[in-house]
Amino acid sequence: MALIVHKYGGTSVGSAERIKAVAQRVAKWQAAGHQLVVVVSAMSGETNRLLGLARAVQPEPDPRELDVVASTGEQVTIGLLAMALKQRGLPAKSFTGAQVRILTDSAFTKARIRQIDVEPMRYELARGSVVVVAGFQGVDEAGDITTLGRGGSDTTAVALAAALRAHECLIYTDVDGVYTADPRVVSDARRLATVTFEEMLELASLGSKVLQIRSVEFAGKYKVPLRVLSSLSDPDTPLAEESTSGTLITLEDDQKMEEAIISGVAFNRDEAKITVVGVPDRPGVAYAILGPIGEANIDVDMIIQNAGVDGMTDFSFTVNRGEFQKALEVLNTRVKDHIKASEIRGDNKVCKVSLVGVGMRTHAGVASKMFRTLAEEGINIQMISTSEIKVAVVVDEKHVERAVRALHRAFDLDQAA
Amino acid sequence: MALIVHKYGGTSVGSAERIKAVAQRVAKWQAAGHQLVVVVSAMSGETNRLLGLARAVQPEPDPRELDVVASTGEQVTIGLLAMALKQRGLPAKSFTGAQVRILTDSAFTKARIRQIDVEPMRYELARGSVVVVAGFQGVDEAGDITTLGRGGSDTTAVALAAALRAHECLIYTDVDGVYTADPRVVSDARRLATVTFEEMLELASLGSKVLQIRSVEFAGKYKVPLRVLSSLSDPDTPLAEESTSGTLITLEDDQKMEEAIISGVAFNRDEAKITVVGVPDRPGVAYAILGPIGEANIDVDMIIQNAGVDGMTDFSFTVNRGEFQKALEVLNTRVKDHIKASEIRGDNKVCKVSLVGVGMRTHAGVASKMFRTLAEEGINIQMISTSEIKVAVVVDEKHVERAVRALHRAFDLDQAA
Repeated sequence: MALIVHKYGGTSVGSAERIKAVAQRVAKWQAAGHQLVVVVSAMSGETNRLLGLARAVQPEPDPRELDVVASTGEQVTIGLLAMALKQRGLPAKSFTGAQVRILTDSAFTKARIRQIDVEPMRYELARGSVVVVAGFQGVDEAGDITTLGRGGSDTTAVALAAALRAHECLIYTDVDGVYTADPRVVSDARRLATVTFEEMLELASLGSKVLQIRSVEFAGKYKVPLRVLSSLSDPDTPLAEESTSGTLITLEDDQKMEEAIISGVAFNRDEAKITVVGVPDRPGVAYAILGPIGEANIDVDMIIQNAGVDGMTDFSFTVNRGEFQKALEVLNTRVKDHIKASEIRGDNKVCKVSLVGVGMRTHAGVASKMFRTLAEEGINIQMISTSEIKVAVVVDEKHVERAVRALHRAFDLDQAA
Repeated sequence: MALIVHKYGGTSVGSAERIKAVAQRVAKWQAAGHQLVVVVSAMSGETNRLLGLARAVQPEPDPRELDVVASTGEQVTIGLLAMALKQRGLPAKSFTGAQVRILTDSAFTKARIRQIDVEPMRYELARGSVVVVAGFQGVDEAGDITTLGRGGSDTTAVALAAALRAHECLIYTDVDGVYTADPRVVSDARRLATVTFEEMLELASLGSKVLQIRSVEFAGKYKVPLRVLSSLSDPDTPLAEESTSGTLITLEDDQKMEEAIISGVAFNRDEAKITVVGVPDRPGVAYAILGPIGEANIDVDMIIQNAGVDGMTDFSFTVNRGEFQKALEVLNTRVKDHIKASEIRGDNKVCKVSLVGVGMRTHAGVASKMFRTLAEEGINIQMISTSEIKVAVVVDEKHVERAVRALHRAFDLDQAA
């Protein structure tokens, strides 16, 4: 008998019928003797409906009140899933984020989990109940409702798995695993049976969209085995088959490093780049630029600063496209004059394309091969950023699909490993 | 400066536009120097949508989980109204039932309020904020979400007004006051400028549907001045005019007793009657019958037991039509054999029609005039129940509109008082 955490996204709980199918699947796991904690998202479309209502009332909704409204989506789903389980004769009990309690900081709409009280869940599990928990939400010290931001239900699932020391965390979704590239862009993309946390972290942050990045960080940090698998398969699929399907996200595997250099090509369309031109090249400048950006709760992705020339340099970074205007405003009002920059430039028509693979560490020439491939396609590279297991470039958004396909082909990702 | 409680029902907050209109009205009261606590219902249609989802998953929804789902309707509205107020530049803060906290018992779907913590509201009011509270919901000792049952938002408003010792509780609704009869049935029904708590209690319990009965009980018990008025008037109506519109529900007014004998004719279509036939006429029988009914959380309305003949009697009562089958089942399985009753009879095609008025106390002959009027209309009376200020009869549902019109005319309710 093991403690297993399941997570079902919006499409998987998008109707009464889908919720009943989830109950059927959960019942199968329970019947095999496992203890189940099930994390659910809002029914598909519901979060957007609520955001639409909020914006109709207040164009830039107050963050605290937006969380009060948005958190109701998951609350509806937990009640419905608990009902569906009871209808099948299974004891079940739902918990909101506040009821668990999932304590977060007070950064409304993008809160971070601080602490989880596992006692109420352990109590219900010991009584034989299925525990159903609302994803995406928590509560701060003051008792105010918070949300973890979009995709936060994955984070909730992994955080619960870590806190409960679960045997495995299964993320049921509408794709059947992690691919070498987006199958909608690259037709011969392959499903990976396993991928390391580090690779997944790079893939997720780069827009593979299978898992929210913070959930992978959590999973890696707390060594929670994580599996991405399909919620569209027959709920009565034999357990032995289902429990080995999808893609397992593992601790680093030496054997695998020998086999493949590159795991996949990822891309992210929601990028915008900003350059602070003519910055004095002296200590504290990076903080003077990114400090106010961080205070405005804007997440920064790539950060690039070249070696200075004549005591001056340019400082570039990318942000989510939705925060582009806000970031420009912060820079123009709070940063530009303060650091005596000559200009703030921005472009929100860019995309990021990345090659990811732990094999990169021991194989030289990945970056140069990547740049050559893009050059042969006539695609200009605007920014470059590298890590030990990733090379990422920013290109004009009109080239993104062609770049991904060319790289997938050049690195033989269509060939079985 | 006074502390005022407003309550807005589902139609009054049924769209983003209506919510903005509520914010405009609240802003007017705040601008006049008042402290405002605003209680809101779910947007119209939302509670039924949520109940429909629940029933699609579990035909008889689990009460605890149903409250988890149903309570989200009001939670959405409080967030939206707080946003609309902030959009107008007013400080505002929303509270769920659990956040206030409104402590209830654990009778899910029909919980009763035990205690209200006024400190968090007082703190926000002292800071100049408008306090927005979710109606209809609370939390029990275990931290589980409860709801007060349909119409419970009125009860929340009055309970908050009582706990905060508010100057007045204004119930904004889609009718502009309390009438001598339902204007849809009796075309020349008149609006009452004032009505006593006792009269209102009888009128509400008999289906006038303007206010939920428990809210009137609370208001009477804690002497909260209560006014029913229209949410459809121009939000910028001058305060002096708005604050004297609608119907004021007052403590008993001696002067008024001299003027009118009858305040109104009420009716309730949702009735069902049940008769336990052939009951031994001995102590404890009423409890043996109604004890199990109460344990099943079924509310009983009229209760009639005639003097016994030959040591046997019949015992009749009415329940809400929706609980008719459940009540029959309780009687047949847990009561009938136990008390050796010969038969359980039921009829769910009945309605109740009532005459209400404090003047009745000092005027004989109201009941006999009522019975004569119905006899002249050829309407058979199935049950009769009287109180000091009410005479209620049960008739076949097909006669109800004719009965109401005939009584309204016979008691000159169409004449100005």
